[in-house]
Amino acid sequence: MRGTIGYGAVRPDEELSLRTIERRDLRPDDIAVRVTYCGVCFSDLVALRGLPAHGADQPLVPGHEFVGEVLATGAEVTRFQVGDQVAVGNIVDSCGVCAMCRAGQENFCAEFPTLTYGGRDRRDGTPTLGGYSGEYVVRESFAYHRPDNLDAAAVAPLLCAGVTVWEPLRRWGAGPGMTVGVAGLGGLGHLAVRLAKALGARVVVLTRTTEKAADARALGADDVVVTTDEQSLARAVNSIDLLIDTISAPHDLGRLLRLVALDGTLCSLGYLGPVSLETMDLLIGRKSLASAGSGGRPRTQELLDFCGEHGITADVEVLPAAQVATAMRRLDANDVRYRFVLDLSDLSHLSDLPTA
Amino acid sequence: MRGTIGYGAVRPDEELSLRTIERRDLRPDDIAVRVTYCGVCFSDLVALRGLPAHGADQPLVPGHEFVGEVLATGAEVTRFQVGDQVAVGNIVDSCGVCAMCRAGQENFCAEFPTLTYGGRDRRDGTPTLGGYSGEYVVRESFAYHRPDNLDAAAVAPLLCAGVTVWEPLRRWGAGPGMTVGVAGLGGLGHLAVRLAKALGARVVVLTRTTEKAADARALGADDVVVTTDEQSLARAVNSIDLLIDTISAPHDLGRLLRLVALDGTLCSLGYLGPVSLETMDLLIGRKSLASAGSGGRPRTQELLDFCGEHGITADVEVLPAAQVATAMRRLDANDVRYRFVLDLSDLSHLSDLPTA
Repeated sequence: MRGTIGYGAVRPDEELSLRTIERRDLRPDDIAVRVTYCGVCFSDLVALRGLPAHGADQPLVPGHEFVGEVLATGAEVTRFQVGDQVAVGNIVDSCGVCAMCRAGQENFCAEFPTLTYGGRDRRDGTPTLGGYSGEYVVRESFAYHRPDNLDAAAVAPLLCAGVTVWEPLRRWGAGPGMTVGVAGLGGLGHLAVRLAKALGARVVVLTRTTEKAADARALGADDVVVTTDEQSLARAVNSIDLLIDTISAPHDLGRLLRLVALDGTLCSLGYLGPVSLETMDLLIGRKSLASAGSGGRPRTQELLDFCGEHGITADVEVLPAAQVATAMRRLDANDVRYRFVLDLSDLSHLSDLPTA
Repeated sequence: MRGTIGYGAVRPDEELSLRTIERRDLRPDDIAVRVTYCGVCFSDLVALRGLPAHGADQPLVPGHEFVGEVLATGAEVTRFQVGDQVAVGNIVDSCGVCAMCRAGQENFCAEFPTLTYGGRDRRDGTPTLGGYSGEYVVRESFAYHRPDNLDAAAVAPLLCAGVTVWEPLRRWGAGPGMTVGVAGLGGLGHLAVRLAKALGARVVVLTRTTEKAADARALGADDVVVTTDEQSLARAVNSIDLLIDTISAPHDLGRLLRLVALDGTLCSLGYLGPVSLETMDLLIGRKSLASAGSGGRPRTQELLDFCGEHGITADVEVLPAAQVATAMRRLDANDVRYRFVLDLSDLSHLSDLPTA
């Protein structure tokens, strides 16, 4: 086994703390990645809160959007060499044979994809531990080439927040002649604005207050609709072809559907619970409510390439990994613009520690 | 005014009865249509039940899918001549200038379209009375040319049931290489099967019992899924690109969404109330829930032309108009395969009656 360090917890009320963890010895198709930067996703917080009160057998090590450098390669690895700049997202394996996998949507694998953390390895059944760590071992086919012209820390959030908005933008054909709305200007939303704009769409940001209007325009938005202002709302009725809804709290979908254009789609990405709506809110204008989550391998690499070409990255606040607790606290208070990224590059010297 | 007869009621508990009604004198862009056959739509029943218990000021005369012959034309009418075979659907006017009207979706008019019955004329404010009548006066631009190679009675249901399924089939591109599912084999469903098949799609009928399997195949279905049989259901998981849901009672959308394929759509046409579902049922497979209703003018004429070309009509049971109460009772009991059509052609001699 390969020893390294990671920030983990076993109980929901416990702060993440540094501990030694093990990575598997490289299989023929594995690469070992020295993690340099890992984004802090809201679902990391959700996963930690989901730990059993009495404590889990294994620590939960979060982190599923990270970048790094290839440290070692398995005997049959063909796509990467030691020293390559790579990135890893929120899934690290899938069945590979179901219709979803064959369509390049491993994120919807019929057998459920193997999550980067909190999952179980498909071959040996061991729990997966995430990217808040010094090193990660992954099948080469679930690692991505990272454009070398972009700031590494600011690339990390593309692997989860980025691909989560990229997939619906591509699926619904965001581009010239189309109006894309973005509700919620956080980790996902700010990237949706940049990406939709770079794809050539007209971009409208929906916000509850005027405070974020300047930020929205700075990110590239062509227009801002203040959803608490009836006049502003009325002006936008039936005007948005694709509304990317990144709001994570339960909210009124009928109100957002009013803004969707004929044959348009409201794509809910932020909220995962039960929803209710009036059929008439869909019927008038033949509108659709959709959802999506994460991304498949082809679109993930496509996103990274697109971002390299267009110079797009996330707006990040980089914190030393030792300040992970601060990041979690501030994220919980929604005090981040727009994504925390943990700097794990100075932990690499710890990777020779004996395993616990 | 032009006197004619119609079957109407003023109270929800009253049977429809023959009465004299008035039609407006022809405006320059109007045509008068001698109604020959009018389909009986489930919404006719719903409208009658919605009458005030104490009685309405005006009788409700249902009927919004009818065919007939042009009796007279206004001075500026250019598209029709006396004697032309025409058809009228469930809307007879709209604002003409909103985005929906400009897109040819007058059914979604921002000012709400004028309904064929139970609405109010946009110019003089008089209540509209439907096609259970001897004559109808309509703007020429809301009448359609009827293919003369098809049985007139069996064409009538195309104007509401038909276009209601035609619009989503066209919007979501039903055709070769695509699997269309149809849930509910009634007035809408049986036409959805025929139309989807004629468009070149593979068609799967979803039914609760095996009883309707033979009917489904006779209509052209390639496959039948029995939704109460877990094995049958499991076989169809993630396989339907467009699921046309014509079930009018509240039902479990999550169960139907399981059958929808990657990037597919469940289009709800039969049920108009509030719905609830789990976001995850949409997320896994990036599925959409949509609704639609009725049709705009371009697609209505397109449907009639397509049916003329492919010899498609509804399966109807024609009853003399005097038996309208029987039709309503049997429709309410779901005892129809698949649409009642009232024969109003033998009432034409009554159209000289004095108005009430």
